[in-house]
Amino acid sequence: LLREAGRHVAAVFSPRAVLVISDEQVAARYLGAVTASLQGAGFSVSTALVPPGEQSKSKDRLFDLYEACFAARLERRSLIVALGGGVVGDLAGYVAASYLRGIPFVQMPTTLLAQVDSSVGGKTGINLPGGKNLVGAFHQPSLVLSDVAALATLDDRQYRAGLVESVKHAAIADAEYFDYLEKNIEPLLSCDTAVLEHIASENCRIKAAVVAEDPTEQNKRRILNYGHTLGHAVETASAFSLLHGEAVAAGMIAAGMLEDAMGLVKDERLSRLRRLLEQLGQPTRIPKAISKAALIDLLKRDKKAVGQWPRFVLLEQLGRTLCKESQWAHEVAPEAVETVIEALV
Amino acid sequence: LLREAGRHVAAVFSPRAVLVISDEQVAARYLGAVTASLQGAGFSVSTALVPPGEQSKSKDRLFDLYEACFAARLERRSLIVALGGGVVGDLAGYVAASYLRGIPFVQMPTTLLAQVDSSVGGKTGINLPGGKNLVGAFHQPSLVLSDVAALATLDDRQYRAGLVESVKHAAIADAEYFDYLEKNIEPLLSCDTAVLEHIASENCRIKAAVVAEDPTEQNKRRILNYGHTLGHAVETASAFSLLHGEAVAAGMIAAGMLEDAMGLVKDERLSRLRRLLEQLGQPTRIPKAISKAALIDLLKRDKKAVGQWPRFVLLEQLGRTLCKESQWAHEVAPEAVETVIEALV
Repeated sequence: LLREAGRHVAAVFSPRAVLVISDEQVAARYLGAVTASLQGAGFSVSTALVPPGEQSKSKDRLFDLYEACFAARLERRSLIVALGGGVVGDLAGYVAASYLRGIPFVQMPTTLLAQVDSSVGGKTGINLPGGKNLVGAFHQPSLVLSDVAALATLDDRQYRAGLVESVKHAAIADAEYFDYLEKNIEPLLSCDTAVLEHIASENCRIKAAVVAEDPTEQNKRRILNYGHTLGHAVETASAFSLLHGEAVAAGMIAAGMLEDAMGLVKDERLSRLRRLLEQLGQPTRIPKAISKAALIDLLKRDKKAVGQWPRFVLLEQLGRTLCKESQWAHEVAPEAVETVIEALV
Repeated sequence: LLREAGRHVAAVFSPRAVLVISDEQVAARYLGAVTASLQGAGFSVSTALVPPGEQSKSKDRLFDLYEACFAARLERRSLIVALGGGVVGDLAGYVAASYLRGIPFVQMPTTLLAQVDSSVGGKTGINLPGGKNLVGAFHQPSLVLSDVAALATLDDRQYRAGLVESVKHAAIADAEYFDYLEKNIEPLLSCDTAVLEHIASENCRIKAAVVAEDPTEQNKRRILNYGHTLGHAVETASAFSLLHGEAVAAGMIAAGMLEDAMGLVKDERLSRLRRLLEQLGQPTRIPKAISKAALIDLLKRDKKAVGQWPRFVLLEQLGRTLCKESQWAHEVAPEAVETVIEALV
């Protein structure tokens, strides 16, 4: 797909100026092919690279990219392409959201996490010293081009952590898809192309349907946050030694234990969830080095906190989240959360 | 109104955390009263100040304010108040647009330009070294509280330049309002309260109606750009020695001359426009120090350029802009623009 990028982008946009934003690692593999293909389809292409890694979602890289937009003489009708993983997607997407008060952009995700989650839904942003994604915008991509062939070059740990978002989408929205994941552990772990195409497409379908109902996360979109409330805190408290998916795995188990403590679990879902995550090589506990106090403090600062305490997305059953009084995220007493954290460390 | 700010904000928002952003000059006059009033209405108030002047619409001041939001533990339901002129409104509005991907904000404009124009419509942003407002967002204020008593302390030149946006709104949308301005030169220049309340309210009404039809400037909102295409270029080329309104005054005359060259002027509007602007003490020519080449280069980089040349909003008659083939901004040959520039320098 990346080699045919020009044809796919031309199906949505007439030829115009394009700035392709990528990271140095991804660019070494794919930038030449993408640029050539876009040029072949009549686009006028400029490029801008950032170093790989989360630290590029920063004030200084953001403003370097604005300067690149200015140097490329981008106009409101121009186009930005985000070629890379979640960091490039969030950063380039945010440049597109804010340069000239918003220009269109295309996602070309090259990691599993980006393909199964972050490239869809329009969340873009950068980090502040105080936390991840504290500055950002909702800005929907005009096209998401997921080439699963790019996943063959991924680091194994990154790849497996990316599968956690597939588990999440299945758990909140589609019990049959959860069955499918359970039955396809082997091909999943060996990057079977047909299975990868299926999960990239299923995840997009599930996420896009939720986002279309509630693009700016006023209510229902919160269900995508399942496992992420404690997950984000664990990820930050680990000083990012845990990958996002790994932290969310522990966060989903925590959500399941909260459901259990509230008497909501009447099926096998918690044990099925734990087994599936373990088979995918994911942690289902919180690392011992992380203190409960640090997690509680991070939860109080959660972006979505209301009155300095976050709400939690819970399952009603596998494939369906709990909705009570039109609310999709629920009040859970801090004491109950502390008990779960103690049990998980 | 500023002394009663708490009551007016409480009519829209239940008590919650508020960060009031202002500049040091405005804060010295009004911050105490606004803070006390908000606290009296039950809001929990933090404050953050920037230096006065356009140079505060910068990367560094923006990120200082994000840190202030973090220190104030703002949540998505919290509120930002912009207390000041256009610079504070644009900057604080952009903080509100982008912190946590958007939190609500209230405008409390204290200059005429902000009251009659920039506080309404949701354009927020900061400057880059290459140009004004190159980074920004559309983010509508939940409330605009315009206290005309604040205008009494304004610098006279700033005040008169602010009146230019009233002339603009009248010219594009309301011929009766244009008559009113012509008949009220004296009370306008002497800051008569009743006249000021009338123009603040008329401008809001006209601008809000246009913005409600096209919030993100896809088409009709462009009419607000009347006089601004060349105006922005003149303002930048003067290195901001001309005030915004002064540059727009020259830009409106230029638009009128383009209309004339195209055979569109069959009434007295160009002479009426020139006379009204002169009576308000505004320049109707381009300063000699500005070169045509600099203006042409700036026009090519206009944010709204299409194929590196901007389109121009033109009048059909006083009180109505020209709309042709559903377009509100029109192609004008670069040669015609050059001729007008030569005639105006």
